[in-house]
Order: sequence, then structure tokens, then C-alpha cells
Amino acid sequence: MRIYDIILKKREGNILTKEEIEYFVEGYTQGIIPDYQASAFMMALYFQKMNREETVFLTKAMVNSGDILDLSSIKGRKVDKHSTGGVGDTTTLVVAPLVAAAGVPVAKMSGRGLGHTGGTIDKLESFRGFRAEISKEEFIRNVKTSKISIASQTGNLAPADKKLYALRDVTATVDNLSLIAASIMSKKLAAGADAIVLDVKTGRGAFMKNIKDSIDLARTMVEIGNGLGKETIAIISNMDQPLGRTVGNAMEVAEAINTLKGNGPADLFELSMAIATQMLILAKLVEGEREAREKLERVIKDGSALEKFRELIIAQGGDARAIKQPELLPQAKYIIDLKSPQDGFIKEIKADEVGLTALMLGAGRDRKDSKIDLEVGIYLCKKVGEEVKKGEVIAKIHSNNKGIENIISRLMNSFVFTNDKIYPPKLIYGIVRKDGIEYK
Amino acid sequence: MRIYDIILKKREGNILTKEEIEYFVEGYTQGIIPDYQASAFMMALYFQKMNREETVFLTKAMVNSGDILDLSSIKGRKVDKHSTGGVGDTTTLVVAPLVAAAGVPVAKMSGRGLGHTGGTIDKLESFRGFRAEISKEEFIRNVKTSKISIASQTGNLAPADKKLYALRDVTATVDNLSLIAASIMSKKLAAGADAIVLDVKTGRGAFMKNIKDSIDLARTMVEIGNGLGKETIAIISNMDQPLGRTVGNAMEVAEAINTLKGNGPADLFELSMAIATQMLILAKLVEGEREAREKLERVIKDGSALEKFRELIIAQGGDARAIKQPELLPQAKYIIDLKSPQDGFIKEIKADEVGLTALMLGAGRDRKDSKIDLEVGIYLCKKVGEEVKKGEVIAKIHSNNKGIENIISRLMNSFVFTNDKIYPPKLIYGIVRKDGIEYK
Repeated sequence: MRIYDIILKKREGNILTKEEIEYFVEGYTQGIIPDYQASAFMMALYFQKMNREETVFLTKAMVNSGDILDLSSIKGRKVDKHSTGGVGDTTTLVVAPLVAAAGVPVAKMSGRGLGHTGGTIDKLESFRGFRAEISKEEFIRNVKTSKISIASQTGNLAPADKKLYALRDVTATVDNLSLIAASIMSKKLAAGADAIVLDVKTGRGAFMKNIKDSIDLARTMVEIGNGLGKETIAIISNMDQPLGRTVGNAMEVAEAINTLKGNGPADLFELSMAIATQMLILAKLVEGEREAREKLERVIKDGSALEKFRELIIAQGGDARAIKQPELLPQAKYIIDLKSPQDGFIKEIKADEVGLTALMLGAGRDRKDSKIDLEVGIYLCKKVGEEVKKGEVIAKIHSNNKGIENIISRLMNSFVFTNDKIYPPKLIYGIVRKDGIEYK
Repeated sequence: MRIYDIILKKREGNILTKEEIEYFVEGYTQGIIPDYQASAFMMALYFQKMNREETVFLTKAMVNSGDILDLSSIKGRKVDKHSTGGVGDTTTLVVAPLVAAAGVPVAKMSGRGLGHTGGTIDKLESFRGFRAEISKEEFIRNVKTSKISIASQTGNLAPADKKLYALRDVTATVDNLSLIAASIMSKKLAAGADAIVLDVKTGRGAFMKNIKDSIDLARTMVEIGNGLGKETIAIISNMDQPLGRTVGNAMEVAEAINTLKGNGPADLFELSMAIATQMLILAKLVEGEREAREKLERVIKDGSALEKFRELIIAQGGDARAIKQPELLPQAKYIIDLKSPQDGFIKEIKADEVGLTALMLGAGRDRKDSKIDLEVGIYLCKKVGEEVKKGEVIAKIHSNNKGIENIISRLMNSFVFTNDKIYPPKLIYGIVRKDGIEYK
């Protein structure tokens, strides 16, 4: 087999065999196939695409390129969750303790990531002393003890994906459905869970801007997961405006705490409940959605969901007092109010633009080695569909700098007003399962 | 400017600016842009193509990436020729002495090349002692003294092309009209001639298999040449069957000698005359085709064309006795006859297949470091349209090995017979000039 022939075959629009795909993934991971052939192949793939079967083969080869985490010593069905990423997406911090409190073992590998805010791991470091870089043994021990651990990705999981993603990132070959799906799913599958709930975001703050592309991505990932023996479903959720009311790191942690108390913003609460519901079902701990919902509401009401969050923080060395005293979380120096220029209703809050302002404040990373500021962020006092009076505060900017006129005006431009009453947008479009879509 | 943005821009089908193209060519030549970005860009170009203007910019940037040979000290208009390559294409060995004898200064850089036989330089080494690797000074001096020199490419001509071609060759990104045209033309333009006659081959033994693609390539190259200030025309010629009767190295040299004496095969003679005619016209030594033709026939008849060939060989240290005593040229040990299995006419001789048998005999290179055998090759006793009797010899294989049953059967399969009388195929389809095509 020669990589040249594989590139040519795909360039000509032909379907690759399992063996050809494995040959590429193994050869590239081992450094036998050089970057310049891999990048030409990625560009050919961008144009000619892969079918579902090829995509499953690709994902499997990527999973097999490294270690697969062995969670078999943990009792019960381990269910993982993954979000394709959005602005103000705090769901992991809510969902993980929530389902753990309801009995699902949560062994969650999470990332730092590039973007408008840090990843889950960065956010958790808002608790002084929290250790995300724990050993595999400690990770598994924590899940056994308290049903929950969230750790920075450890070990050699899907190294092919890591190497390939770095290459795609600098060669304009990221945007390809199969490559995106295989990249996400290879990491999830290597992380060892028995079942996976995906939250595929759609809208201007998401990677997939329109519903059709989001459904395509969801379907592809659901087919990959099920094709490789892991029950997988995907929720399609709205990401036109930020999720919840906060965009930041410590600010999102505080919001997650409120949500676990039952006092969170409606959209973050509903999406978290929807994800948690599906996780309970896949964990086979409940008969159906109604039973799951009741169980989840109970663990919020009786405080055990929040307590589970506290356990997580303590187990990994964090200062858990902040859970009861949110003022102990990192706080920005200044809070600047943004006021409505008119009476009316909020028609739109451009999630991508809000994300950029968060990045400009220092909440995120634009390069791998950027340092992030846990303290800063944005609080949205008003969300889409809500009424405003002229001069009323619509957002608060938490900043460590004062001269931020450009950020203020950028955030102001993220808001679109209307005189007519409008309804909040649909939050969840549907659920994709291997046998089809259930539209909500 | 960032190469990432240029790749993305082309991937999305947009037209690149002169500055962007220059940025790429300079950056890549200097090693600032790595291979993996260049190969992704080449694959994006394969799919999205370049328009004529972009192609001219690309060629110019490639010419400017290295030295441009200065032939200004040589009197008269220097006219270069280039063939896109075919099987049994001995035209340079005929045309160069022919036009030099008629008064055109021929300063020809030539290559060794990969393929079924060696390149012009390899063939010339059939003359014992011939030196192709001469200095620029000796090269120019020879042209001044005897109007002709043929040298292995010297100096740092179009290094961008060299580097880029090597990359395209291993990443399945060779087949792109703009890249092919820019590659050929950048080398020609850097070689310093005032005008260029191209011989664009079409057919199964050529790079371009059909007439439409060949005309496209010819038009693109003619536009590049004229766009960059060098009068350029292209002849489109047939390459379905091999040109002439020989495919090999020393065997082609012997055939070129015969043709310069006026005793060559009809198609090689006619194509050589057509190319030479256009070269005389571009050199402004004649008024038109008729005058050119008369002049060329005269230098063949009076022996001065052959004498010019002898001068070339002697000037570069070769043993020129072989011109009058062809038996001094390298000879293979064995000659194996191939006999017609039936009465009838030759309908087809598959040039690409004949090329492969020559390669199998050892006449060519399949890798840059392969050693070629000057002695071996194929002589076609019959060509398309000629009548044969069953058992009559249709080809002779000159080989240095005896057990070549696979080569014999492959060559036999290159022949297609028919019972009906057919005519020889059209040799020259037309001439492409900057103002249009003249169909022949």
C-alpha cells in the first residue's frame, strides 16, 4: 500500500477501504507518513468527503492509535457527555454532579481548549487548589468513591487525532463533517465510557451555524458511536445567544452553583436537565424521561446535587468553601454597566460577538500558551425575548481594566432590539438517535 | 499576509492576488512556508483551479525565484523549443541542428527526466565522451561559435518549480493545468530565449490524453509566454502511436541522424519540419512558412544540418565518428523479432504501452537514481495504417537480456490489427497563437 495511491484515490472521489484508512492513520501517527502527504490528503478529503462507513473506520483507527481508558473496574454503566462548544456553555459543571447524585458514575476527561473562555478544567480551577492533572488511578478511585471525577485528559488517548488536528488547524482543513465527527468521537470512545450523550450546538455561537449541518454532524457522530458499540445519542440545542446569563470562568462556576441549587437561568437549567435525563436513560437507571426528570428534580431539591459538586472539589484538593460563599471565587476589579439605548425587547444577542468580547477581556485563549483570566466575563441581565426600558442595565462587564471602550461598544453591538414583543427562541430542536430524529 | 488565509481563500474558490501568489512562491522557495501548507494549497488549487491571470502571476513568481539566463551577448533572436513529452520523441535532436544550420541561434537547456526513455541529454551521451554538464560560459561560447549548444540544466533556474514539482509528485497534485503550464513555462522563460515554440502532445502516449485538454494547456502556455513578453506559439501533435520508428536512446539518435540526412520516418520528419518552420518564423529569418520550408529542405539536402549536428557533438567532446558510422553507437546484444499474427492493417500502436516495454527493457528511469541502458529499445517496422502479412516482422526488440517473454507479449498487445484498410492518423492538429488556433 502506498499513501500516494490513497491520496489519489480520494482525490478522484473514490471510497477508501478499511485497510487504506488504517494504513493512513497508523502511518501518520508513527511518523512514517510525512505531514505534507497527510495535509494533501486532508484537503482532498475536504473536497471529496467520506461516507459514513469510511468515517467509522477512520474513528476506529484513531481510537486504536493510542490507549483506551479501562473503566471496567467501576460498577454501573458509565455515561459520558460532550458538547460541541458554545458561548456560556456551563452544562458540564451542572450535569456532572447532577447525574452523579442520581447514581450515574461520571468519569469525565475534559479539556482546556482554545476559545472565548477556558474549558471545564480551567473553570474548575476557580476553586483554589483544585487539581485537574491527576493520575488515572486517582481518577478511577474518585469515581469509585464518590461517583464523580473530572480530570484533564490523561495518558495517550487518540494521539492520531491530536497530531492530525494540529495539522488541519494550520492547513485550512478543519471544516469537514467526517473529520470533525471522527475527532470528537475518537477522544470520547478512547475515554472508555459505555454510552455517550452529545450536545450538538447550532447557531451563530456554535461551530455549526445552521440546523442542517448540526443534524448532519449529530447523525454522523451517533452512527459512529453506535457503529463502534457504544450507545450514543445527540441533543441539538440552540446557540444563537449565549447559554445562561454568564460568559466567563469563575462567573460561570457561580452560575453552575446557582443552577444546582435550582436558582439558575431557565435555558441553562432546561438544557442541563435534558442532557442529564438522557444520561440517566442511557445508564439504565430509569424507565423513561418522566422518571429521570423526577429523580433529577429530587436531587436538586434535597441538596444532594450541590453536595456532589462539593465532594468533587474536595476530592481533588479544591477550596470548597466557595460553593457556599461565592464571593470567595475569583472576582474582577471593575463592573461596568451596559444600558439599553431604547425601550423595547431584546431581539438578538449575537453569541459569537459576546464570545469575542469575553476573549478581549482575557477570559479565553487565542493561542495554546495564552494565560486566561478567571475573574473577568460578562453577565447578561437581559436575554432574547425580555423587555427593556431605555437606560435599564442589560449587561454587566466584569473587567480588570478600565479603558475598555472598544469592548463596551462591541458588546453593545451584540444586542439587537425590537419594538415588537417576541418570544424566547426554541432551546432544544430535537434528539438524534440511531433510529432517527425526535423533533422537540 | 498569512499562508493559512491564502490556502483558505483558494479552498473557497476565490481568485488570488499577484501579491498573495508571490508571497507563497517566495515563502516556499525560501523554506519559510513548510511543505505541509504548500501541499494543502496545491490540493486546494487542484480542485479550485487558477484563472489565466493567476497562472501568469504564478509563472512570473517562479521565474523570479532564481536566476534568469542572460543570452543577450549572443547575436540574433534566440528561439527555444519544448515538447510536453511523448514516446519516441526525438524531435530536439533533429530540430536543433536543423534550425541552427538555417541560422537560428540554439541555446538549449535540456533535461534527463523520468520516463520510458532518457531525455535529450541522456540520448546525446550515446556519443562517447559527450559532455552535457558544461559551464554557462562554455554554453554561450558554443552558441556564439557554432550557433548551437545543448546542455544539462545549469545554474539556479526556477528553483521554486523544482521544489514545488518534487512536492506535487508525491502528493497527487501534478494534474492541474495551471501548475503544469507554470512549471514548464517558468523553466523555459528562465532559460532566456526571446521566443518559444511548444510541441504539445495529445493522445494516449502523452500527458494530455485528449485534444481538449491539450488545447487548454497549449492556450495557457501561449498566454503565459506572451503575457510575460516572449513570443510563444504551440503546435498540437498526435501522440497515440510512438513518433518515428524507434523508442530507445542510441536507437533514437541513429534515427535522428537518418532524418537529418532526409531519410527519416515520415512523421518524425514532418513534425520536425513543422517545429523548425515556426522557429525560423519566430526568429524572423524568413517571411513565412513557404520560405522557411525551402530553407530547411536546402540545409538537409546540402548536408549542413547533419554537419551542424557533428559540430555540436565535437564541441562538447563527443566521438562524432558515430554520425557517419552508426554501428559505433551503443548496440544491444540481442534483436528479437515480433511477427504479425494475421494478415491485415495496423489499426493502433498504443504509445503508452510501447513506452512501458521500453522502460522494462531498461531504456528509461522509473526513479531519479535509476541507471538507463542506452543500447536497448524498440524498432517499429510497421506503423498505423501500414499493411501486414501474417508472420511478417512488425517490430524488433533490441535487448540485453534473453528471457523477456513478458516484454514480448506486452509489446504484442500494444498492436491492434484490423482487416480493413485505414489511413495513417492526422499528425498535426493545429497551431495555437495568442490570437487563436489555426486548425490543420
